[in-house]
Amino acid sequence: MKTTYGKKYISMATVSRMATYLQCLTYLEHQHTSTVSSHELAALLGVTPEQVRQDFSTFGLVGKRGSGYDVVRLKTEIELIFGRGVDRWKCCIVGAGSLGTALVSSHMVQKWGFKYAAAFDTDPRKIGTHIGRIPVYAVEDLKDVIRREHIAIGVMTVPASSARKVADLLCEAGIRGILNFAPRVIKVPASIPVLSVDLSQEFLKLAFYIQSAEQRAREQQAQIEATSHGE
Amino acid sequence: MKTTYGKKYISMATVSRMATYLQCLTYLEHQHTSTVSSHELAALLGVTPEQVRQDFSTFGLVGKRGSGYDVVRLKTEIELIFGRGVDRWKCCIVGAGSLGTALVSSHMVQKWGFKYAAAFDTDPRKIGTHIGRIPVYAVEDLKDVIRREHIAIGVMTVPASSARKVADLLCEAGIRGILNFAPRVIKVPASIPVLSVDLSQEFLKLAFYIQSAEQRAREQQAQIEATSHGE
Repeated sequence: MKTTYGKKYISMATVSRMATYLQCLTYLEHQHTSTVSSHELAALLGVTPEQVRQDFSTFGLVGKRGSGYDVVRLKTEIELIFGRGVDRWKCCIVGAGSLGTALVSSHMVQKWGFKYAAAFDTDPRKIGTHIGRIPVYAVEDLKDVIRREHIAIGVMTVPASSARKVADLLCEAGIRGILNFAPRVIKVPASIPVLSVDLSQEFLKLAFYIQSAEQRAREQQAQIEATSHGE
Repeated sequence: MKTTYGKKYISMATVSRMATYLQCLTYLEHQHTSTVSSHELAALLGVTPEQVRQDFSTFGLVGKRGSGYDVVRLKTEIELIFGRGVDRWKCCIVGAGSLGTALVSSHMVQKWGFKYAAAFDTDPRKIGTHIGRIPVYAVEDLKDVIRREHIAIGVMTVPASSARKVADLLCEAGIRGILNFAPRVIKVPASIPVLSVDLSQEFLKLAFYIQSAEQRAREQQAQIEATSHGE
């Protein structure tokens, strides 16, 4: 996905890091930390301090020489970059299964200004019920509800087999962006951003890190043994 | 997290891309595509062809000049890099709530050689039941079950308040890696890789992409109008 900020091209990796800085700053604010240096942020994220400064300068964020960044101010500025405060990120869930329920029930996204307004399902036993305070509607009502409620983001937690149909429905309803948890590549007009989340990739990455860590441990052990034999 | 492959340092971004290549290759295999060029893979991922070739050469994967990469062979080679085929990625879920249930019920991870062997919870109504075929044990039995079943990966879907206690228990049990869905930073010995997944970050990123796309659309519209006025 090609993304811009003002006239600048921004890589997806940069956007990811900005979201992680925001998470770190929220943590630091809770800890009543007032200032943070690029070195401290770099250590928290596992990147270089130069990377932190470069990321911030891309978005026009500057610290004070010597004292670093003001935590609350920097957090507020990054929130604005992510559209916080505009109060327009109404979300809907399509697919009220266990993952859909988990997402709606989690209060994690609310602190960033996102709000679930509706859920949709095809199961007659679920239609008309609520998940927490969120009403579950029939998928047939998707377009009407999205337009009436001015829903911006469609979160797809449907099986792979219905992913494309649901994506088409969301686009016809005028959705502004899609978060896709269905294990299927979906095609929508280029003007509508889609972010696909594949949780199985996190398992793959972790498996890689485990192997790498265990390999390093074996090598260190071998080195220790070689050294002690050489004595 | 510092990661190595052989003697080489590997960035987390590279590991992420490798997992995405694997997903793409699986898709291409299903489509009965026999070969793929670095240009085609680059287009699917939204990166440059140079990036694809650099990533593959890091892991010693080479294509044929002119005909590109053999899909099935490349997929098998990347699977091996991720530890597929070693049949040792037994997983457990700690926290049998809606997210835990969603993860265990999803069959997405099984195709990569991961297998859920146990779930743990503190709720007496859940202990002794099953999620699909996976037994739900009491958290008190966590260490015994992990050791007995040789479970490699602990997936934490517990509330923030119990995250640190559960992480300690997993480490004491000899877990090899942790996938943390709890919204809390956890500290474990450096030898045990932890991958924290914060789904709210995906919402933030999507909000950024939406704003960026809508800003571009407005600019293009303004340009069209300016041009037509100038005629």
